[in-house]
Amino acid sequence: MKLRLGMIGGGQGAFIGAVHRIAARIDGEYELVCGAFSSNPEKSQASGLLLGLPANRIYNSYTELIEKEKQLPENERVQVISIVTPNHVHFAPTKMALENGFHVVLDKPMTFSLAEAKELDKIVKATGKLFCLTHTYTGYPMVKEAKQLIKAGKLGAIRKVYVEYPQGWLSSFLEGDDNKQASWRTDPGKSGIAGAMGDIGTHAFNLAEYVTGLEVTKICADINIVVEGRKLDDDGAALLKFNNGASGVLTATQIAAGEENNVKIRVYGEKGGLEWHQSDANSLSVMYTDKPMEVWRTGGGYTSSFAQHNTRTPAGHPEGYLEAFANLYRNFALTVKAGIEGRTATPEELDFPGVKEGVRGMAFIENVIASGKSDKKWTEFSI
Amino acid sequence: MKLRLGMIGGGQGAFIGAVHRIAARIDGEYELVCGAFSSNPEKSQASGLLLGLPANRIYNSYTELIEKEKQLPENERVQVISIVTPNHVHFAPTKMALENGFHVVLDKPMTFSLAEAKELDKIVKATGKLFCLTHTYTGYPMVKEAKQLIKAGKLGAIRKVYVEYPQGWLSSFLEGDDNKQASWRTDPGKSGIAGAMGDIGTHAFNLAEYVTGLEVTKICADINIVVEGRKLDDDGAALLKFNNGASGVLTATQIAAGEENNVKIRVYGEKGGLEWHQSDANSLSVMYTDKPMEVWRTGGGYTSSFAQHNTRTPAGHPEGYLEAFANLYRNFALTVKAGIEGRTATPEELDFPGVKEGVRGMAFIENVIASGKSDKKWTEFSI
Amino acid sequence: MKLRLGMIGGGQGAFIGAVHRIAARIDGEYELVCGAFSSNPEKSQASGLLLGLPANRIYNSYTELIEKEKQLPENERVQVISIVTPNHVHFAPTKMALENGFHVVLDKPMTFSLAEAKELDKIVKATGKLFCLTHTYTGYPMVKEAKQLIKAGKLGAIRKVYVEYPQGWLSSFLEGDDNKQASWRTDPGKSGIAGAMGDIGTHAFNLAEYVTGLEVTKICADINIVVEGRKLDDDGAALLKFNNGASGVLTATQIAAGEENNVKIRVYGEKGGLEWHQSDANSLSVMYTDKPMEVWRTGGGYTSSFAQHNTRTPAGHPEGYLEAFANLYRNFALTVKAGIEGRTATPEELDFPGVKEGVRGMAFIENVIASGKSDKKWTEFSI
Amino acid sequence: MKLRLGMIGGGQGAFIGAVHRIAARIDGEYELVCGAFSSNPEKSQASGLLLGLPANRIYNSYTELIEKEKQLPENERVQVISIVTPNHVHFAPTKMALENGFHVVLDKPMTFSLAEAKELDKIVKATGKLFCLTHTYTGYPMVKEAKQLIKAGKLGAIRKVYVEYPQGWLSSFLEGDDNKQASWRTDPGKSGIAGAMGDIGTHAFNLAEYVTGLEVTKICADINIVVEGRKLDDDGAALLKFNNGASGVLTATQIAAGEENNVKIRVYGEKGGLEWHQSDANSLSVMYTDKPMEVWRTGGGYTSSFAQHNTRTPAGHPEGYLEAFANLYRNFALTVKAGIEGRTATPEELDFPGVKEGVRGMAFIENVIASGKSDKKWTEFSI
Repeated sequence: MKLRLGMIGGGQGAFIGAVHRIAARIDGEYELVCGAFSSNPEKSQASGLLLGLPANRIYNSYTELIEKEKQLPENERVQVISIVTPNHVHFAPTKMALENGFHVVLDKPMTFSLAEAKELDKIVKATGKLFCLTHTYTGYPMVKEAKQLIKAGKLGAIRKVYVEYPQGWLSSFLEGDDNKQASWRTDPGKSGIAGAMGDIGTHAFNLAEYVTGLEVTKICADINIVVEGRKLDDDGAALLKFNNGASGVLTATQIAAGEENNVKIRVYGEKGGLEWHQSDANSLSVMYTDKPMEVWRTGGGYTSSFAQHNTRTPAGHPEGYLEAFANLYRNFALTVKAGIEGRTATPEELDFPGVKEGVRGMAFIENVIASGKSDKKWTEFSI
Repeated sequence: MKLRLGMIGGGQGAFIGAVHRIAARIDGEYELVCGAFSSNPEKSQASGLLLGLPANRIYNSYTELIEKEKQLPENERVQVISIVTPNHVHFAPTKMALENGFHVVLDKPMTFSLAEAKELDKIVKATGKLFCLTHTYTGYPMVKEAKQLIKAGKLGAIRKVYVEYPQGWLSSFLEGDDNKQASWRTDPGKSGIAGAMGDIGTHAFNLAEYVTGLEVTKICADINIVVEGRKLDDDGAALLKFNNGASGVLTATQIAAGEENNVKIRVYGEKGGLEWHQSDANSLSVMYTDKPMEVWRTGGGYTSSFAQHNTRTPAGHPEGYLEAFANLYRNFALTVKAGIEGRTATPEELDFPGVKEGVRGMAFIENVIASGKSDKKWTEFSI
Repeated sequence: MKLRLGMIGGGQGAFIGAVHRIAARIDGEYELVCGAFSSNPEKSQASGLLLGLPANRIYNSYTELIEKEKQLPENERVQVISIVTPNHVHFAPTKMALENGFHVVLDKPMTFSLAEAKELDKIVKATGKLFCLTHTYTGYPMVKEAKQLIKAGKLGAIRKVYVEYPQGWLSSFLEGDDNKQASWRTDPGKSGIAGAMGDIGTHAFNLAEYVTGLEVTKICADINIVVEGRKLDDDGAALLKFNNGASGVLTATQIAAGEENNVKIRVYGEKGGLEWHQSDANSLSVMYTDKPMEVWRTGGGYTSSFAQHNTRTPAGHPEGYLEAFANLYRNFALTVKAGIEGRTATPEELDFPGVKEGVRGMAFIENVIASGKSDKKWTEFSI
Repeated sequence: MKLRLGMIGGGQGAFIGAVHRIAARIDGEYELVCGAFSSNPEKSQASGLLLGLPANRIYNSYTELIEKEKQLPENERVQVISIVTPNHVHFAPTKMALENGFHVVLDKPMTFSLAEAKELDKIVKATGKLFCLTHTYTGYPMVKEAKQLIKAGKLGAIRKVYVEYPQGWLSSFLEGDDNKQASWRTDPGKSGIAGAMGDIGTHAFNLAEYVTGLEVTKICADINIVVEGRKLDDDGAALLKFNNGASGVLTATQIAAGEENNVKIRVYGEKGGLEWHQSDANSLSVMYTDKPMEVWRTGGGYTSSFAQHNTRTPAGHPEGYLEAFANLYRNFALTVKAGIEGRTATPEELDFPGVKEGVRGMAFIENVIASGKSDKKWTEFSI
């Protein structure tokens, strides 16, 4: 049984919409049945037809999609709606979808503002519908393994966390040209109060909290607009304090010229440390004070149920970004199906980011930007 | 428009069938409409239902599939048939599918014997149907880039080729246990005259000829059965001569304990060299005698049309084995569609392995095994 | 002609003294002629005899060494004195050596306090003797290449600097055991006001300023004592501002369990970035926004005169930490000899750290510790 | 006490002589007291003076050196003679040195021909003098660790060995220019019957036998002259059989354009495998079929007495080629001193290559070249 999937946003020329569609296809758990791919009706139609949808399931707006789908017979109407619009169009369609009985997969960051995020949290809880926020990097098997190793106490109490997301693609004033991706991401009206911190800082923040199981309690940030003329931060670094007393450093930048997307995390505890980075995504280095470093690998027979559940191929056949993304979609589908089948989802199936991560991500944005403007060293992490 | 795909083999518990299905799904170019997933009818039914197929499109044998599908209306019947059975069941279904008007995607090696391969070559040509052989590794964007760089003369005339495929999974007598993958691959009745040389040696051979654009003309091989009780080679190495005078070394082993699947190729010409290996599949090292080594990357704006055509995400988001596999399916689909649309397929679309590669692969198997048994140093590569 | 070298400190059981001696030996520019290896006369004698020194050139104190050597004929007496004692015994012997006419090589950090450092600066200038501070990492050919590439404008104006020095050896309370290295480094009476920040933070700071040619102007630091019972910082991170407006992050820790000594620097400018780390010390990655990353290598024919001057072997024969250290000794020797020969030393010969770096290093220690204690975000870097 | 060292060959412009001198200096076990650095007396004098030798200990020929030194008082005369001349001037000075009571360190390959090697073997045994052949790569701590791990049975019985030495520096006809290194190495009158196979193939061969503890019994080689006009092989590959039934592949080439000197060995046994390569010389990867790969590191507290004995710095401070070379010199010195002191040298001290390795190396050259010319597949390894 495939879940019926609809999409809001992600028309021709969009980047992340296409990624969501591939992620949804990989494991065959979904069938795309409808979409409102653009606020421009012609573009929405063209995009939908290219995707092989029948014209009557291609809508001109998200409101139309939700209203019309709701009127379809239950065994025909969409079940899960993916929302892949820019940040300022996250809250309203998500709220409407949830309140009309649809499960939602939403691209990060969750909303335009923390206030919206907190509101959405209530709506998810009130409606009882399922919600997934696509923090892709937590979908990698070796990121999951890192979390499990720490949870099992392999490193002892955590003392230090370094997390970084270096990009270089905004090293020049791309938004001055006709670059769609650059334009909305650097536009305060579409992106929110943060640029790099919202776009990729939230990924780094989420990764740190996911892997360690800790929560950030204080932030001291240096937030910069490096490229002249830009309206939002394109670079930042933050000193962190965690709720167990550990400290950390988070960096996110879009002006590290020459860098691609090498997200990286390193965590150290009393007994050892670990390191994962996206450029070698199928390896997890685990190091000790008294024995050789180990390289744990996607597909290794010795890995945890969480890693194995999220792996498709034997060790040595690299699984990448699209598979990590697909893991979010697959686990969400399995959880939705568990509900339909009336069974309890397993911890492995439930292992996808949701509203809690979304609210904390938006709080990160607001706190890190506030800290960047403050003369005080430490800003309490408040929600 | 999605192409209608059928599958022969690949029932529950099979490895490569599932991989083919993911590969076919990733780009949304196919829709699975029917299958004969096992020679065991119950298993075939169960497998098909799990995949969401209607019962009437799940068949109990490949002959049934082909016969019944042929009777369906043209706009309903399967268009492309994937054949993912063990080697001894490659020829007959492929021949029948082609002769009944279907395009075929076939897992490697092409057939059980070279004689069958030459026969199939004729059938493909006679029927005019399209045929793709899934030599996955040539689907990687950086493997394609390597080919393009060499073709463009970046390295000068090629002098030396090293290609290797090290695995360790058959280090013990797995076929003694109930290991399905090990069992048929080490069974002369199902695999053919070669074990490791057929299973992975052909991949290495194909990779070498694809990347360099050269053809092997002589082989001197050392072929071994290392694990006691095994019936087919699990290890081998071959000295090679190419048609331009270059020499090479090919190694393929399944008893390199601890190795995963790190296929690797290195090619050296008069002016420089290059290296690619699957464990860092998105990088291609290009080295020179007089300037720094360069690391070319999947998604780099400077890459060729062939690499870019086979890339889905911006640089730094790793694409892996499943995407490489998907590139074969996608290019085959685009070529099939070009035919349907009456247009000429582009060189990028036509860039997938076919019968020529299949015949040469089977010739490699026969020649390398013959050389392994010979006391003469060099065995001419004959077809 | 070999320079006559004396050593203060570095008796049996010491770590860095032995390293200094190897560094001084590698290029054959020095001959060890005397030493006061320990404040314990017996230990000094035993150490000196093991090193093959005649008993009359082994002294019981640095004062004795300087006084007695001064009375020897000019062509016999020591010319360069290496001082490798703990921090609290840096200033006095260096001052005395300089004022008695000897050139000095001193281990870092320069002194016990910034006040002493400023005083030493004056003494060096007043005496006109030569002075080298052993910030080893700037001795690596590829670190020098990084500096030259930036100086030549290859990256454009510098925007971001990440520098880190992670160690794990002080993850437990080693100073509670009989660990000589741990004991003095964590003792405020011997090390000064800083632990990790003085021991390795100064290396990271020096590396950042050396490679970029910039100066730090502001610091915002998080300084921690992680291991219970420890008296000095064993972990820290600092946000940085540079005099051209660039920002940076410096981390130095001794509680990153499992880490060895992988000092690392990354610098990004308008046009590209570079990365160097000690674990692959003979490579320098240079990345661009629009073409493949390059890997520059020690020994490459395309490297600068600075890199080549500091390289002994053809590319691919790794030169390591001891050779980097030896480069400081060798360049210092060549500069001393230039003076003796009455010629002007070349820029390559003069390329070793001196009092300026020493004063800035001590200022770093005082400023970073002050910032660590401050509630204000930014502390001006004052000297 | 320093051993008194003399050198034959290695005058200005030579490469390996300078390396030998650095290696001899690093640990302070030797003092260079005399030399005959060139067959050109003026060059020999100039070279010796630059090295700080007194004129009366600089000789115009090796015969003069040996004769004159022998007449010096025992506590003054040279004790160890390093011979670093081209291959055709290995045998005679070594024989004369040994027969006149001096210990010898000789650069590889041992002699010009196997016949000479066998003769030298007898002379060493007859004179009872100590002899070291500088197969540098066995001096690396992690190569020693590999040997110890295999010896201890960590991998089980060895089944497969891959060893390679790729270089690119002879990709063009360098000997046509005024390149001293290229000229003698490609000259049959100076190098012997082999080019690449003698120069670097012997290193690969020695590395394989040292690490595995096995002996090659059969060879099947493809030997090539790739660059037009060259007189000796510049490329080759050989299939190998070992005395325990294991098989292997050895490649050595000097025309792999862009390659530096990345010697590499991989060994696989029943239970696991290991890999070492010079470009990451301080790491040894040890892989298993059922648990994560381990990365053993120079300086790790868990390493064997053999690795630790050959390590100078804490883990993470890379030791390189010169330290590996120095390990040969140091172990030889310790063994010489043990003799002087009348004590038995330890296994760690005795761990340097000698005549046995030299004879086998020369046999490798003769057998591999013979195999290259043979039409038979396998050539028995005969001495």
